[in-house]
Amino acid sequence: MNKKTLKKLIDVASGRLPADLVIKHCKIVDVYSGTITEGDIAISDGIIAGVGCYEGLKEIDAQGRYAAPGFIDSHIHIESSYVTPEEMGRLVVPYGTTTIIADPHEIVNVCGLKGLQYMLDAASETALDIRFMIPSCVPATPFEHAGAVVDAAAMSKPITDERILGVGEFMDFPGVIHAQDGALDKLMLAKQVGKLVDGHSPGVFGKDLNAYVATLIHTDHECSSVQEMHDRIAVGMYVLLREGSACHELSHLMKGITQYNSRRCLLCSDDRQPKTILEKGHLDEHMRMLTKAGIDPIVAIQMASLNAAECFRLFDRGALAPGLRADIVLLDDLKDFKAESVFIEGRLVAQKGCYLPEVKRHSIDNVRGSFHVKDFSLQKLRLKLSSDYVTTIDILPGGVVTAKGKARVARDEQGCFKYDPSQDVVKVAVVERHHATGNVAVALLRGYGITQGALAISIAHDSHNIIVVGVTDEDMAVAVESLISQNGGMVLVKDQKVIASMPMPVGGIMSDQRGEWVDEKLSEIHEVAYRELHVKEDVEPIMTLCFMSLAVIPEVKLTDMGLFDVTTFSFIPVEA
Amino acid sequence: MNKKTLKKLIDVASGRLPADLVIKHCKIVDVYSGTITEGDIAISDGIIAGVGCYEGLKEIDAQGRYAAPGFIDSHIHIESSYVTPEEMGRLVVPYGTTTIIADPHEIVNVCGLKGLQYMLDAASETALDIRFMIPSCVPATPFEHAGAVVDAAAMSKPITDERILGVGEFMDFPGVIHAQDGALDKLMLAKQVGKLVDGHSPGVFGKDLNAYVATLIHTDHECSSVQEMHDRIAVGMYVLLREGSACHELSHLMKGITQYNSRRCLLCSDDRQPKTILEKGHLDEHMRMLTKAGIDPIVAIQMASLNAAECFRLFDRGALAPGLRADIVLLDDLKDFKAESVFIEGRLVAQKGCYLPEVKRHSIDNVRGSFHVKDFSLQKLRLKLSSDYVTTIDILPGGVVTAKGKARVARDEQGCFKYDPSQDVVKVAVVERHHATGNVAVALLRGYGITQGALAISIAHDSHNIIVVGVTDEDMAVAVESLISQNGGMVLVKDQKVIASMPMPVGGIMSDQRGEWVDEKLSEIHEVAYRELHVKEDVEPIMTLCFMSLAVIPEVKLTDMGLFDVTTFSFIPVEA
Repeated sequence: MNKKTLKKLIDVASGRLPADLVIKHCKIVDVYSGTITEGDIAISDGIIAGVGCYEGLKEIDAQGRYAAPGFIDSHIHIESSYVTPEEMGRLVVPYGTTTIIADPHEIVNVCGLKGLQYMLDAASETALDIRFMIPSCVPATPFEHAGAVVDAAAMSKPITDERILGVGEFMDFPGVIHAQDGALDKLMLAKQVGKLVDGHSPGVFGKDLNAYVATLIHTDHECSSVQEMHDRIAVGMYVLLREGSACHELSHLMKGITQYNSRRCLLCSDDRQPKTILEKGHLDEHMRMLTKAGIDPIVAIQMASLNAAECFRLFDRGALAPGLRADIVLLDDLKDFKAESVFIEGRLVAQKGCYLPEVKRHSIDNVRGSFHVKDFSLQKLRLKLSSDYVTTIDILPGGVVTAKGKARVARDEQGCFKYDPSQDVVKVAVVERHHATGNVAVALLRGYGITQGALAISIAHDSHNIIVVGVTDEDMAVAVESLISQNGGMVLVKDQKVIASMPMPVGGIMSDQRGEWVDEKLSEIHEVAYRELHVKEDVEPIMTLCFMSLAVIPEVKLTDMGLFDVTTFSFIPVEA
Repeated sequence: MNKKTLKKLIDVASGRLPADLVIKHCKIVDVYSGTITEGDIAISDGIIAGVGCYEGLKEIDAQGRYAAPGFIDSHIHIESSYVTPEEMGRLVVPYGTTTIIADPHEIVNVCGLKGLQYMLDAASETALDIRFMIPSCVPATPFEHAGAVVDAAAMSKPITDERILGVGEFMDFPGVIHAQDGALDKLMLAKQVGKLVDGHSPGVFGKDLNAYVATLIHTDHECSSVQEMHDRIAVGMYVLLREGSACHELSHLMKGITQYNSRRCLLCSDDRQPKTILEKGHLDEHMRMLTKAGIDPIVAIQMASLNAAECFRLFDRGALAPGLRADIVLLDDLKDFKAESVFIEGRLVAQKGCYLPEVKRHSIDNVRGSFHVKDFSLQKLRLKLSSDYVTTIDILPGGVVTAKGKARVARDEQGCFKYDPSQDVVKVAVVERHHATGNVAVALLRGYGITQGALAISIAHDSHNIIVVGVTDEDMAVAVESLISQNGGMVLVKDQKVIASMPMPVGGIMSDQRGEWVDEKLSEIHEVAYRELHVKEDVEPIMTLCFMSLAVIPEVKLTDMGLFDVTTFSFIPVEA
């Protein structure tokens, strides 16, 4: 803001000049006082000049609707919505979200800082104010090949960008608790530039939690119990109550909210797929759940506004008061939290569920060609075994955690694994796709149900190599090759023909299409996977594979470097 | 904090290394959760490593006492305590105060930025963490000669000092509300360097308040009614509940505290004289009053710690949690709030009411010789009148506000005012003492009661010229000359002899002695003023004169430039 703008703001506030815009007849939610006041909101150059009785060059009649501060999602991975930042804005703004704190962990694991830059650039194309945390764990583990390595030195320049609020969820809590060098360097960097560090400390308690928080890591969105929530608040963390597509802690964590600690509670999605957004909305869902459970609606709104602004030190927002950004949501009531109109910096950006600005799409050229696979061939999918007895990756309900299984399998004359329709054991392979290492790791998966063709995806947390499952090497090979040629996404193959696919050219993990299209495509892929490939009805065909490489979650996983036993943190042979 | 310190902190927190100091067996006041937890507090290099069960190289047994975060006085003028910053620390730390936000408005009005530098230097000699706001109104008004002019340009360098949190109470609210250039420059400067601006807006409401706050001025300590308090909270200000020596709003403002707005409430003294501190303590008095009135003691402590830290963005303190400064107060109970021990950055600095560190006194040489008076003489005290009918400055109860009176007075053969024992009208003069202008303004004071001698002081808000009241020109002249020769303070004269005095060599407004000495001296001066000069019993002899030059408070005042009518904002003749 320059002096001229400030002078105008004061003149408007004092009533000497008409406002650029006045939203008349609001019931204003005062998150400072916990009260509702009737009045107009006067706006000058996107800033609230005053609340009271004002005239404006332009006036909008709120017709007695509630005016709340724009909602802030305190932690979300845009990539997990399979859409770009511009599209994310189009999807969530109509639900009253005006700011999100995004952690571009996935794209940076694929494309490195080039991925971060793309997210920053693309974010500038949407009305939604997207602030970023720079991912702290790239690569996430040393047990796989990621697209990049981002250490403290690499972070030191980008972290100074004003849109970057600090270091993203510090998943390497063992590294912090044991004061490991690489972790300390990143924490020191955040201190030096005076920025924040988000936490991620599931199941960390007592002195370990003290050690983790002593570094001033100051949020956690991984609480799964009220005890965990209360422990974190007690050591000074802000707790982000999560309700996303995969994780649903809000309904039981809300039992831990008290009149004292509510100011330390925020709301977040973490992961939220288009389907969830289109069907349930965004933070309005959180607030519906909270108020339905008896939490005061103003306290719920505080969590989505003032508390988040305080936590992330966004002192220019979080309430409807003079001098703050005119990020305003008009609500029909404080029960359904349905946003009738949404304003960002005083601009009407959504109405009756529709996003109003033209959606400019930033070029994805810098993050498109993210596949670098060297001499992949059918042969690499063959699995030579020295014994019939093998270790299998057994799918468990939920699909994230697996079990280490044992099976006796058939082998061909060369001693290679041979698919036996009589038992539900198939090949799963991870094809390294970042550095053309030529790595292809093959193992055996039980419980997926597939009896036909193959399915390949390039969303494989956290390094996002290619994962392929299939009954025949031929179909698996076609799936991998088609996936590469479409720059990633999802491909289903039967009889060596692609029968369904969703290209995800943005780093191989995001679509460049609209959320509605992504949602339809994903439903189609699910439907075809069940109908044509006979994936088991109780298995989520995509999500299950997405976590198959996540070598930090028990019990056995497969990365491009081989079969990994998470309980012993070591690679193991397929032969049992 | 460097990497080595951070590593040690983590090692201590996790229990791998013993702490430097452990305070065992505390009832820890958790201001985040609003609960009390039993445990030890482990400290490493002055930082809290953890709360729980810890061993330390040194251990102190709290014997089950309550451990609260150190108290923060959110707004105080050290000069109004008549002592230096080092002495201020010695006085308040034993009551649990570990941080104060000081506005050196008085010394800067006398000595300019040299005065600010002195305060910064002196502050570094005490264990108390003193943070400063750079005075916004030097001079306070254009109707008198102050010692300095500090505009935005002059502020631009000092404001970047990390001990300076922003711009001090912006008393020139008309300047802000009317968007005057000089005011905007100071506000823009604060924005540019990302620092705060304290407010001062008594009686400012509605659109004027919006205009004032739109600039992001974000505190107010001048609320006199619950309505004023609520209005300020609603526009996003933090409200500082004041209980000082002169102003006592806490007891009625506390009625306005709610479960929603308490997080926006802080505690402050503004002015607190040694007498008050020695008899009533410091913020412990505020908390006693709050809890006695039924406010939850943890909410009271939040106002003195977490809320203040959040307001002033002191993110390294405000609670007892890992990673924060070990500023800790051990309390016998949460009723009297008597501090048994006080720790600052992990160092025991007070116990059982005694300040423990050696008190180093910073040199006052740079602020000692603050008197520059040109050819002052008895003649200048003569008051030639063209009529017997005069305007008098009538003292009203309280002594701050005056009334514009009318009287008929006696004159000598030269037509000059002649003291008439039969009526309580005496001369009051203001002698300019900063720039040797030679200004001496003389007027008439009614209701002070003095019938003998003269009384001169160099504390005269806000420019601190010399004010002298007396019955004879001779005694008045002696008083002024003695005051100058002792570098300011207070002087009582009878029969042309000094009968009592307190030198205040620090800018002529602060003593370089201990608070106890100041308190005794002040009592003696009061006693002598009543006994020997016959000042009226219901008039506070010093305080009444201190505000006699404050040309912003009704109704008539006297500055070095003449008799000033505050209702018309113009100078007027003595003759009625």
